[in-house]
Amino acid sequence: MNVTLSGRTQHFRTVTYDAAQNFIHLINQRLLPHDFKIVPARDFRETAAAIREMVVRGAGAIGATAAYGLAQGACAFPGDNLKKFSAHVETVFHALKSARPTAVDPVNAMIRVRREMVRGKTVAERQSLALAAAEEFANEDVRHCEAIGRHGGKLIRPGSRILTHCNAGWLAFVDVGTATAPIYAAHAAGKGFHVWCDETRPRSQGATLTAWELAQQKISHQIIADNAAGHLMQRGKVDLVIVGSDRTLGRTGEVTNKIGTYTKAVMAARHRIPFYVAIPLSTIDWNLKSGFDIPIEERSENEVLGAWGRTKGEGKRTKTGQQKSSEQVYVRVANPSSRAYNPGFDVTPPELITGIITPLGIIKPKELWKRRQELGYSS
Amino acid sequence: MNVTLSGRTQHFRTVTYDAAQNFIHLINQRLLPHDFKIVPARDFRETAAAIREMVVRGAGAIGATAAYGLAQGACAFPGDNLKKFSAHVETVFHALKSARPTAVDPVNAMIRVRREMVRGKTVAERQSLALAAAEEFANEDVRHCEAIGRHGGKLIRPGSRILTHCNAGWLAFVDVGTATAPIYAAHAAGKGFHVWCDETRPRSQGATLTAWELAQQKISHQIIADNAAGHLMQRGKVDLVIVGSDRTLGRTGEVTNKIGTYTKAVMAARHRIPFYVAIPLSTIDWNLKSGFDIPIEERSENEVLGAWGRTKGEGKRTKTGQQKSSEQVYVRVANPSSRAYNPGFDVTPPELITGIITPLGIIKPKELWKRRQELGYSS
Repeated sequence: MNVTLSGRTQHFRTVTYDAAQNFIHLINQRLLPHDFKIVPARDFRETAAAIREMVVRGAGAIGATAAYGLAQGACAFPGDNLKKFSAHVETVFHALKSARPTAVDPVNAMIRVRREMVRGKTVAERQSLALAAAEEFANEDVRHCEAIGRHGGKLIRPGSRILTHCNAGWLAFVDVGTATAPIYAAHAAGKGFHVWCDETRPRSQGATLTAWELAQQKISHQIIADNAAGHLMQRGKVDLVIVGSDRTLGRTGEVTNKIGTYTKAVMAARHRIPFYVAIPLSTIDWNLKSGFDIPIEERSENEVLGAWGRTKGEGKRTKTGQQKSSEQVYVRVANPSSRAYNPGFDVTPPELITGIITPLGIIKPKELWKRRQELGYSS
Repeated sequence: MNVTLSGRTQHFRTVTYDAAQNFIHLINQRLLPHDFKIVPARDFRETAAAIREMVVRGAGAIGATAAYGLAQGACAFPGDNLKKFSAHVETVFHALKSARPTAVDPVNAMIRVRREMVRGKTVAERQSLALAAAEEFANEDVRHCEAIGRHGGKLIRPGSRILTHCNAGWLAFVDVGTATAPIYAAHAAGKGFHVWCDETRPRSQGATLTAWELAQQKISHQIIADNAAGHLMQRGKVDLVIVGSDRTLGRTGEVTNKIGTYTKAVMAARHRIPFYVAIPLSTIDWNLKSGFDIPIEERSENEVLGAWGRTKGEGKRTKTGQQKSSEQVYVRVANPSSRAYNPGFDVTPPELITGIITPLGIIKPKELWKRRQELGYSS
């Protein structure tokens, strides 16, 4: 999407490949929303470190980064010994996989690149096939998000007030995003509307990333405490809810997403407000038979017990005119001797969901299974 | 309630009067939960400043502070000229009233003190009547909270998991508190149970004040993000919800309380979890005819856009062994160019409320009006 830096507007993807240097360029998401910086990953080990340290985060974005990372590693191999090349590729694969051991996207992306690559008969052929496959993976991610935008954008009317939760924006993908795709499509179509960004405690992705994204596109928005969403619905100030999903059960239509999503869905249903979930097909889980089987990750207590932000004065220019670009500081908010419980996700049942916005169109959650063949189900 | 300082346990009220010096001693709530300090207000102007700067906060606590403050001001008057004394008392009254111009508790408390005081015929008599009335105001606040504890404590069973929102604890009153009163009563009765403290963004009173209170009483508790409460209910981990109220409509049974309360009530009803509201009678509004008539205060955007806390190292002992007692620092969490919307309260309809815990017993919200005479209604 477009980003305006010192008055100049330019288009960026979260991850791009620089063939001249065999570098991967990433938006350093650890500095957002306070600073926007592109950092190079100069070899596959730096790429793995960027994934591990969450310089890049979000399902689609880390998938594409791993795909490019595997190609980057392959292209760095000198000589034409195919056997040694294959061993090297496996080293790269495992380095990138172990950067986020529980994430499925990097592995799925790399499996796809490797499958294309092995069609080549020489090292050089395989290097070029790997690059082409990584590029196609990233482009497909963008095309799918754009398709979500075409289908979901129709739900937004001039004057709509849309509630979002967390960040399933372009920063989490290669471009465009999923929950944000309808918003960007409606904005491009010239519809004026307003977005309520749930701050999304404890990690505040709504207040930081989604708000930053919307501000860059000059889309009217305000951040609210998660506690305020129900009140806004009660007072008739929300027309539509759109969220993303980390995992959607193809058999039941249950949606796993950032903690708090279930509560927003219940409140929306009470107030008869349409509640939509935007997803890429890759996040559909065709195996699990019940939402209660989804493991709910328990995250660090520190997320709940405090907050990351910038104190006044930080990030200002220094006396020599240099821009100080510091990461955020952590402040302890809670009572020092108290502990927290921090489930990262919750499960929303299908009866609370108006529709699932997929690249293939809007589907009722309970009809996913019926349409499993066209949605990419493989038994 | 008891507070343990350097291993020594001692009983405190939020506000006490020191007759020897004509000082009011207050717990400095601005330093909590990181530091516990008692500060003296040495004359009525310092008492007004403490109310204004929120050294003391909470309905009952500022009411008692204003009552004592009026008596303190009266007692500082030299001589026996009754006319000059009365003019001086009016000065004190207005100084204390203007410290929190929209709060009703200080005014109601001072009217009571003044009504008692004028029964005296001399300055000395009036001074002593004022003190006695202030003392009685504070003691009555404690007795009412204790009565709430007796009635509400019966709702808590061994093993109960109780959800609370915000702080209607003893820090907000003179002692014991309202929403916390049943918890302290059940704890004193030796029942073991667990409390989930909603952090209560944007001001985090649950994570700071309620968690501090429970930790002092060694009551098992964990802080959760406001987003997590619905998930805990869905997974069967909440047995009971108890909250306070800033204003309860006697005619309709609607409850105004900290933003987010309405959402918890909806979630509790969905999961058939009893939802109780603990209130002192003084917060019943017998005039308003609809919750939609309650003005919802819009608070500072900064509350939503950031957080107050302590960075690592702050509050540690200095090299000379002195305890550094600093106030919290503010960090900006949100995207710098984004704005927020921050409604401070919401309204919960009576059909979501299992019962109102009052000093006179537990009452169905729709039965308040029927029982208005005994509940102190004056038309």
